[in-house]
Amino acid sequence: MQMTGLHLTIRATDGAARTGTIKMPRGEILTPAFMPVGTAGSVKAMLPQQVRETGADVILGNTYHLMLRPGAERIAKLGGLHTFMAWHRPILTDSGGFQVMSLSKLRKITEEGVRFASHIDGSEHFLSPERAMEIQRLLGSDIHMVLDECPAYSATEAEIEKSLALSMRWAKRSKAAFGEQPGHACFGIVQGGVHPHLRRRSAEELQEIDFDGYALGGLAVGEPQTAMFGTLDAAVPHLPHGRPRYLMGVGKPDDIAGAVLRGIDMFDCVLPTRSGRNGQAFTRAGTLNLRNACHAEDPAPLDPECRCIACTQFSRAYLHHVVKAKEIIASMLLTAHNLTYYQDLMGSLRAAISEGRLAQLVSQIAQVYARD
Amino acid sequence: MQMTGLHLTIRATDGAARTGTIKMPRGEILTPAFMPVGTAGSVKAMLPQQVRETGADVILGNTYHLMLRPGAERIAKLGGLHTFMAWHRPILTDSGGFQVMSLSKLRKITEEGVRFASHIDGSEHFLSPERAMEIQRLLGSDIHMVLDECPAYSATEAEIEKSLALSMRWAKRSKAAFGEQPGHACFGIVQGGVHPHLRRRSAEELQEIDFDGYALGGLAVGEPQTAMFGTLDAAVPHLPHGRPRYLMGVGKPDDIAGAVLRGIDMFDCVLPTRSGRNGQAFTRAGTLNLRNACHAEDPAPLDPECRCIACTQFSRAYLHHVVKAKEIIASMLLTAHNLTYYQDLMGSLRAAISEGRLAQLVSQIAQVYARD
Repeated sequence: MQMTGLHLTIRATDGAARTGTIKMPRGEILTPAFMPVGTAGSVKAMLPQQVRETGADVILGNTYHLMLRPGAERIAKLGGLHTFMAWHRPILTDSGGFQVMSLSKLRKITEEGVRFASHIDGSEHFLSPERAMEIQRLLGSDIHMVLDECPAYSATEAEIEKSLALSMRWAKRSKAAFGEQPGHACFGIVQGGVHPHLRRRSAEELQEIDFDGYALGGLAVGEPQTAMFGTLDAAVPHLPHGRPRYLMGVGKPDDIAGAVLRGIDMFDCVLPTRSGRNGQAFTRAGTLNLRNACHAEDPAPLDPECRCIACTQFSRAYLHHVVKAKEIIASMLLTAHNLTYYQDLMGSLRAAISEGRLAQLVSQIAQVYARD
Repeated sequence: MQMTGLHLTIRATDGAARTGTIKMPRGEILTPAFMPVGTAGSVKAMLPQQVRETGADVILGNTYHLMLRPGAERIAKLGGLHTFMAWHRPILTDSGGFQVMSLSKLRKITEEGVRFASHIDGSEHFLSPERAMEIQRLLGSDIHMVLDECPAYSATEAEIEKSLALSMRWAKRSKAAFGEQPGHACFGIVQGGVHPHLRRRSAEELQEIDFDGYALGGLAVGEPQTAMFGTLDAAVPHLPHGRPRYLMGVGKPDDIAGAVLRGIDMFDCVLPTRSGRNGQAFTRAGTLNLRNACHAEDPAPLDPECRCIACTQFSRAYLHHVVKAKEIIASMLLTAHNLTYYQDLMGSLRAAISEGRLAQLVSQIAQVYARD
């Protein structure tokens, strides 16, 4: 048994779903967990203490963004990412691979790694499995992610198989580069598109390397929800019971609920924060677009059951006004609301697992969000 | 003696300067006071509770912005501006006159009032002394300001005298329209440019009408600081001792300090909020531009003596990073810092008056800010 920086205790199960606690030196993470995205050293429009007040136990930082600006060595010199951004609980960092594929230009992938041009200033950078782990170590990340290649949803099975083989070789190099870091953890990433046999192969190969947790990558890239759920059904049974399972980049409330039902423990997604900045709110009755004129004179709160500051202190009419007037408080309030909604969603999923009524809750959530 | 919505108690004086408390039904205002500007129903980048935490006792709302969007009748229907924006302490509203002059197009001034086109959508609006007071009543403003005409700094003495005469007729109509509103107050505005005899005439004519407080308008419009201070020296002695004196739209820390020395009790200015959004910070050592590369690796706080969240939790390096990366938290932190700086400045001026050492403090502040 390797020395691991995290310890998962499963308290209850309900079918494939589980609820429990991940213990880490910087704090406990109740699972299933949602991680707000703190792209460039900030969960956009939120102060760290406000993020914590929503109920978040862990946030995600983006290696790609931070390596380009302000730079990993600079953050290390300033005491690490936790001190830098004043978030003192666990941080999971991605490897940068996904953003290199989606944001940067002129990328060239070789066996060694990926060369790319910064989307900020065009400067040239190189990311290898070893450098991705070094950056995450410099940031002081609690959970490191291996560098992988993320094929497009349109890729053929042959392309995905070839890409998967490269990702597995990179996973081995990533793990070797991670080495032994007491108190820190390293997750492998299962790839293989929507092809069950490739997902199974990936899950098995990663377990031979032995990671502290296992992520599912290459989903939420445009495939229908049924394809995503089918892939989870195929892959999750091949992951070890005692380690956390993390579905990267997912998703809408009904995506999350369906994935929890299939045994996923951790999630991250920009949806609550990005939607908040675009005037969209998630509520127990579905999504609302605050730009719509129907809210202009509505004294009701966004969601009468919500405990957040937007719902307890302001009306829909006020939120409509500040969205239309492009006031910064619109982003602040709607982001706080959406993150609170997501954390309360996770809390209700955890409670439903404990009480053996998850399927019923998941179907309620699916009904509400099927309209959207 | 008229029924007034406010009561000023002067606790100590130091030369022309005074410190005390304005009592109003919605809360007390320690004077000299700085009022953060909540233009369109929000002190930009701040939650109401954060504004209060800086130490603000009262904020300013802009009639011009609120009448155009979301509209005064709509705010009234939603329970008034305090409920709408979740600020439950005193609000002073301007009359809209200044913004009509500075922001709108196609304005036409007659004896009756001013017709203008909205800067938002070009729609036509009309503001008279009566309508300006009606709007402020609909908003539920604690302190109403009369409608006045604000001549440009470049206006000739003859133009200013003519404009002043109109403003004094409008002041009389404004007061009549304000009527009796228990718990609410109405301030007149002294005009007259930088001409002592016109300022004196204006001050005397307004006192014949009898207002709850007296503002000085038409300053901070581009004149040198010496001209502004000279105008205060000429005008303030002609204002009644027992009523608050408010210098509109001022200013930099050294402007405020010099005006307090000359007997001013209340201030408002967009400088701390607007500068914060532009990456500029006010500190006890002068202003800092966080964009500058010299801050990129500086682990020190903005101002080691400051109690705000930006100074107690973050480094200059972090602030530099989020300003450069255009993260919303940059505006949030620097606005919180600047408003805290301004409130602490007012607190130190109040303490210095009580202790009879104001001149010394004002000269220290002037020395620090003379460089900027």
